[in-house]
Amino acid sequence: MAAHGFWSLGGDNASANTGSQSPSTPRAWCQAAAQKLPGGFGSKLCALLNVAEMEKTADVPTKKPLENSAGSCGCNKPCNCPKGTVIFSDLYSTDLLPAMDGDTKTMTFLQEVVDILLAYIVESFDRETKVVDFHYPNELLQMNNWELQDEPATLDDILISCRATLKYAIKTAHPRYFNQLSTGLDMVGLAADWLTSTANTNMFTYEVAPVFVLLEYVTLKKMREIIGWSDGRGDGIFSPGGAISNMYAMLLARFKMFPEVKEKGMSSVPRLAAFTSEHSHFSIKKGAAALGIGTESVICIKADESGKLIPADLERRILEAKQKGFVPFFVSATAGTTVYGAFDPLIAISDICKKYNVWMHVDGAWGGSLLMSRRHRWKLDGVERANSVTWNPHKMMSVPLQCSALLVREEGLMQNCNQMHACYLFQQDKHYDLSYDTGDKALQCGRHVDIFKLWLMWRAKGTIGFEAQIDKCLELSEYLYNKIKDREGYEMVFDGKPQHTNVCFWYLPPGIRYMEDKEERKKHLHKVAPVIKARMMEYGTTMVSYQPQGDKVNFFRMVISNPAATFEDIDFLIEEIERLGQDL
Amino acid sequence: MAAHGFWSLGGDNASANTGSQSPSTPRAWCQAAAQKLPGGFGSKLCALLNVAEMEKTADVPTKKPLENSAGSCGCNKPCNCPKGTVIFSDLYSTDLLPAMDGDTKTMTFLQEVVDILLAYIVESFDRETKVVDFHYPNELLQMNNWELQDEPATLDDILISCRATLKYAIKTAHPRYFNQLSTGLDMVGLAADWLTSTANTNMFTYEVAPVFVLLEYVTLKKMREIIGWSDGRGDGIFSPGGAISNMYAMLLARFKMFPEVKEKGMSSVPRLAAFTSEHSHFSIKKGAAALGIGTESVICIKADESGKLIPADLERRILEAKQKGFVPFFVSATAGTTVYGAFDPLIAISDICKKYNVWMHVDGAWGGSLLMSRRHRWKLDGVERANSVTWNPHKMMSVPLQCSALLVREEGLMQNCNQMHACYLFQQDKHYDLSYDTGDKALQCGRHVDIFKLWLMWRAKGTIGFEAQIDKCLELSEYLYNKIKDREGYEMVFDGKPQHTNVCFWYLPPGIRYMEDKEERKKHLHKVAPVIKARMMEYGTTMVSYQPQGDKVNFFRMVISNPAATFEDIDFLIEEIERLGQDL
Repeated sequence: MAAHGFWSLGGDNASANTGSQSPSTPRAWCQAAAQKLPGGFGSKLCALLNVAEMEKTADVPTKKPLENSAGSCGCNKPCNCPKGTVIFSDLYSTDLLPAMDGDTKTMTFLQEVVDILLAYIVESFDRETKVVDFHYPNELLQMNNWELQDEPATLDDILISCRATLKYAIKTAHPRYFNQLSTGLDMVGLAADWLTSTANTNMFTYEVAPVFVLLEYVTLKKMREIIGWSDGRGDGIFSPGGAISNMYAMLLARFKMFPEVKEKGMSSVPRLAAFTSEHSHFSIKKGAAALGIGTESVICIKADESGKLIPADLERRILEAKQKGFVPFFVSATAGTTVYGAFDPLIAISDICKKYNVWMHVDGAWGGSLLMSRRHRWKLDGVERANSVTWNPHKMMSVPLQCSALLVREEGLMQNCNQMHACYLFQQDKHYDLSYDTGDKALQCGRHVDIFKLWLMWRAKGTIGFEAQIDKCLELSEYLYNKIKDREGYEMVFDGKPQHTNVCFWYLPPGIRYMEDKEERKKHLHKVAPVIKARMMEYGTTMVSYQPQGDKVNFFRMVISNPAATFEDIDFLIEEIERLGQDL
Repeated sequence: MAAHGFWSLGGDNASANTGSQSPSTPRAWCQAAAQKLPGGFGSKLCALLNVAEMEKTADVPTKKPLENSAGSCGCNKPCNCPKGTVIFSDLYSTDLLPAMDGDTKTMTFLQEVVDILLAYIVESFDRETKVVDFHYPNELLQMNNWELQDEPATLDDILISCRATLKYAIKTAHPRYFNQLSTGLDMVGLAADWLTSTANTNMFTYEVAPVFVLLEYVTLKKMREIIGWSDGRGDGIFSPGGAISNMYAMLLARFKMFPEVKEKGMSSVPRLAAFTSEHSHFSIKKGAAALGIGTESVICIKADESGKLIPADLERRILEAKQKGFVPFFVSATAGTTVYGAFDPLIAISDICKKYNVWMHVDGAWGGSLLMSRRHRWKLDGVERANSVTWNPHKMMSVPLQCSALLVREEGLMQNCNQMHACYLFQQDKHYDLSYDTGDKALQCGRHVDIFKLWLMWRAKGTIGFEAQIDKCLELSEYLYNKIKDREGYEMVFDGKPQHTNVCFWYLPPGIRYMEDKEERKKHLHKVAPVIKARMMEYGTTMVSYQPQGDKVNFFRMVISNPAATFEDIDFLIEEIERLGQDL
């Protein structure tokens, strides 16, 4: 078959791009460090200088000029600084390891990337820096050459691409980034993620990930202990996000009740019904659609004013479903809803689940981490009665994305539900204890190593460190709530102190504060949050989410999971909303 | 509710652990660099020294002694080297950013981690280093304190944990690591993954991942062009691995034929039948089980001696299924089977799919990358007729794990199939083009950024660079095949030159080479590969996979996707198998 014409060169010349090493053309990477920083810190200074240089250029970062101070490593004395010996504009990826004599070039290249990253990190935590340098998609597409080419780019181009990518990235570590449930950047978590990338392996067998498999075992057990399951017994897995964890739970519930579904499919099973609050996460419906259960079989239970599922309505709807011939098999209670941060009443729900013999799942993707806090874990009372729990350390515990766990009370069920015995991966005559080959209980085959960052952070903080971090975020949200609940121009979306860090409110610009026509006022108010949000992004000063919910027009949903945020950042947010919204 | 007793301290003292900065206690991080390495390379040398130090200690790495050469940064002259100013044994994670004045400590800490990683990388490519320092699970559990504690550990302990983790890790970059379809470590890919971790964001909206969303768009389009879809039109997504990509394909196929399944579930749908080769990946059955289709509805089609699906058998089984009242909806052809590396005849299969109006999926998780090679892409002739294609750049293209794409020919279908319109994430009144909010077409909610490493590697290598890398791996496998096909003591599992880099063979130790009793010989032979593999791991010299298949007893499956491997490494593998197996 003919090639499709996406190569412009006739031959394989990738190996011809091997550049040669130059004797000495440094960029004076840590020059003047001694003068500027106590203790001297070349790498940092240099990185910051790069940023300054980059900012001097146009929107599209271009090659930065190399300085001519050959032989200076930043100690202000002539020496053999490695940074001075490699010219990236002459080098290609083929010059790096595993190339012969690629060691020095590789380490210098990676060090250069690390310098860019270190500068970005320091910048991200700096309140003087923008959270985002926002551009519309079409603009951004034209701001750089993002297209893929037939020909290789030099390592210098690669470094430029790295800088450009970060220039337009959202600074998710920024103390004023509040946009998602996952915010912040933990330094130990980051280090762990760098190590994970370097180890570049796969969770399916002990053979290829011995330490990581053990750490997953240790950590899941600890999480189950914290849930309150006796001796930490049970099962679990780290999955690619809370939606997949919830889908696993639904899959297990179905298999537990109708194991024949694995071989025979849904045609062997009566019509099923799943139940979850009208405020629950959309992944419950997504899961039901994927698993062949269908979204109509997901029955939405009424929530009260503060967003908690009403148990009486759950029971009523279970009975109703049974009368219609459906088999109730799954209740997903939410511990920390996405918008209100509400905790469903787990004890009452578990009583109902027990009465009707239904699998009880707790979607604690957002709120599960409150189990780490002695002050707040009462909000999940009853979680120990659940059959399964989703808990995303990448949200409230600020573990780098992605890190989501599904914990399961019954041992062996996941394996039975999902195993396919692929003999090329899970050989039965291996020379070690095969119970550590956890891959066959997953839906995935290859599985990314998500455990190490959580484990290392836990090690670094201790349980009490996570607790302190979580408690602080909840204090900040209480501060926000107290600050605005009676403030002129604000209305709370629901009454009472929020249970999680979600503070939901309307900001009413002066112009609509006293509008008499309620419908007119509502119509205006609906447009306020999107405009303020767009302005926030254009100024780049902060980011916070908004949405409508039911018959409630667009309101702000402030969430705090960012350990970098302080009381002053909360004050700033309020001032900023007022500044950007006063003319609306 | 009372705490569960997993804290041993009464109060929140995490913040009490703030260590103070010491004036000057360096570890002479790049001492003597000038003497040892031309060009001087302190960081490298230092990192190597750390490894040497670590190896001097017992199996459990402990604190390394700090050297007393205060004021030396490795240039052999007194200076203010930053490495000398931070004592990690006095510091905790709470001293790092966002802590006040955490900049220097953070950068020094991260630099220390990077030094550990750089040393590991250099070691990994060194053939003198073991591929694995293997220990059985129970041993490894006892070799370090892996347990999670209530109290925080010092940053020094964290660095020790990083070293310990890498000490027992599999060196997947090692030129003699052949164990999985994903091997090797690309330096640009690694740099990109470090950047991805640092950017720490989520793919669901343009709002929080503007560059990455655009790069996914650009790259998916390029991949579709390479498949041969006109103007690169179509759709696609990066998913957490080939198994999930295949599950997406099956989900789309079902939705395409029966869109009502999304709301009504499988009870609205006739009994479905899916078809795939008996040599296909187990994820097809896993997906069918999860989606409520059932494994019995996956009909395994016969493969020929070399592992290719037999089209006549496919047609026969489709007709048979129809007769039994099943509705054939999905054929998954494999481009590069896991064990044999066989390519199913796509053109013949596509004719059958067209005739019976069945969705044609190509599972090219392993073999899809051959599309990048002008010499080898004919093996996928017909792929452009597929409705969907799985292609894992983390396998043959050596992109760091995980990086798997599903490409779909029909635009809009993924969105219709999976969207749930969560109004708190996919607000319809945002200020930018909403077609870039790709999250609602995924099964996941949060989605890890897997695109940047592929994009940056593509940039660095160009299409021709990937081509050269792939062609080289295929050359190596041909070399292996030629070397052993007539060599005494070897038997090939199937005749003829392999189409991918999979070389499947038995090694017959002298003792069983001339056994007359065929059953006895088979019984013995079945035990040979597991023993040799166990010995390989104990010596740590190389790793290669083995498995039985059908009635064939355990054989070695050699695969080459590691760009670091050379002809000499192939020679080594053969010598090693003979050395370790001669007494069996």
